[in-house]
Amino acid sequence: MRRFECVAIIGVGLIGGSVGLALRQRNLAAKVVGVGRRHSSLRVARRIGAVTTTTIDIARGVADAELVVVCTPVGQIVEHVRQAAANCPAGTLITDAGSTKQQICQQLDGTLPRGCRFLGSHPLAGSEKSGPAHAAADLFEGRVAIVTPTANTRAEDFDLIEQFWESLGSVVISLSPAEHDRALALTSHLPHVLAAALALSVPEKLFRLCGTGLLDTTRLAAGDPLLWQQILVSNRDYMLAALEQLGQQVERFRKAILQSDAQELLHLLTQAKRARDALGS
Amino acid sequence: MRRFECVAIIGVGLIGGSVGLALRQRNLAAKVVGVGRRHSSLRVARRIGAVTTTTIDIARGVADAELVVVCTPVGQIVEHVRQAAANCPAGTLITDAGSTKQQICQQLDGTLPRGCRFLGSHPLAGSEKSGPAHAAADLFEGRVAIVTPTANTRAEDFDLIEQFWESLGSVVISLSPAEHDRALALTSHLPHVLAAALALSVPEKLFRLCGTGLLDTTRLAAGDPLLWQQILVSNRDYMLAALEQLGQQVERFRKAILQSDAQELLHLLTQAKRARDALGS
Repeated sequence: MRRFECVAIIGVGLIGGSVGLALRQRNLAAKVVGVGRRHSSLRVARRIGAVTTTTIDIARGVADAELVVVCTPVGQIVEHVRQAAANCPAGTLITDAGSTKQQICQQLDGTLPRGCRFLGSHPLAGSEKSGPAHAAADLFEGRVAIVTPTANTRAEDFDLIEQFWESLGSVVISLSPAEHDRALALTSHLPHVLAAALALSVPEKLFRLCGTGLLDTTRLAAGDPLLWQQILVSNRDYMLAALEQLGQQVERFRKAILQSDAQELLHLLTQAKRARDALGS
Repeated sequence: MRRFECVAIIGVGLIGGSVGLALRQRNLAAKVVGVGRRHSSLRVARRIGAVTTTTIDIARGVADAELVVVCTPVGQIVEHVRQAAANCPAGTLITDAGSTKQQICQQLDGTLPRGCRFLGSHPLAGSEKSGPAHAAADLFEGRVAIVTPTANTRAEDFDLIEQFWESLGSVVISLSPAEHDRALALTSHLPHVLAAALALSVPEKLFRLCGTGLLDTTRLAAGDPLLWQQILVSNRDYMLAALEQLGQQVERFRKAILQSDAQELLHLLTQAKRARDALGS
């Protein structure tokens, strides 16, 4: 992996902070500039060693960047990429870490000024916690990072971004932006909605009667509401399809319970166990 | 807590094995008899020190018992309690560890021969793993154990069973069998059905695109299908009500996504996060 002189990270929360930490601890970048809105977050990012310098001014932050990684919430990525492209060195490659890709890539693909290019990324890492204080240098190790090239993507840009995530320990998978969003609606966004709906279904007076199962099943609901609002809004169509798919499966259980059909319940539970066991632990 | 001369445990899987281990390690019983169907499980239970002797014959197993704890699957508890009551010393108290209580208590309450009594219990402990090999002496520590007295329950029997679970480290809560089943439908059985339905909604080819969130949300689906089949069948009415409640919450999310109502989504996600944060970790 090449060593960068300067990487700019816009948004130094859990993901951005972890990118910075991993770059620094693996000695992959001499200078990591953290760009953020809040001085408090930037201070934490500096203190944990995720960045070498910080600024709240995007234009100054990206002025010397050889690579820009935008790690802000989905709803702000397009704007931040455009601001970066207007101020970074000509021909700079920009990527992101957003949880949806289709809207972002459609708006940015082939539209950046001065030879700058955008190539979307989504590292499948994170947690229900947020902020640079929870950043970890090994957050991406052994995790999948999805890169979403389009017809306009240059081979050398794909190679660079692929190597970038691999150098942080990830396994890279290439999907089109639409394939990404359809898949993640099922594997990530649907579980979040379910966890939230379940958390809302259990009256607070029953909380003392909860076992570890409910804690696991609802854990995602502790995620940042603003981040998830933007993800759900930007993946509307695939989310509706995913909810439809889930509804069909829930209905199979409901019908079997309604009819006291023990045989069918055993069949469904056995199928589900087989799927869950195949998912790993 | 009184020390027992002899406790019989019928069913030495994860729960029964852990009851035995906890009794032995806390020196609460001189003799713990493990009753099971399979010699292989009984061997494991002996090897890990969960029981002092074992038998596949319920009549022999309960012959000297001062307390019988039935830890078999929900569908077999009534039969095993009756077999125990027919063969244990006159006036013996029998409890269980089943995940549903109403059907079991209705069938057993006040119906046992020779002065034997049944009082239902449900320790909210366990995992998606099963078998005595996963038993742990601290499984009940700090966990809630629900005890379900009826109008026929003697105060001294309640006290004994309360002390029993407390001596294993649990916090005891008293609920009627119906209250128990209505609450657990929401806090335990509904999460299981959701985890299973979600596991069935994600096509296997997308498994490599799963993050830790899907693993958490579907973890319960790895549970023993036969155990859960019996739980769902025996809690039919409250499960249908719980599914109805969940459906209403999911519909709120679906409608907000359909209408791209970012404000409403933020509201729902914020409410859900507040609930999940209150649940603890």
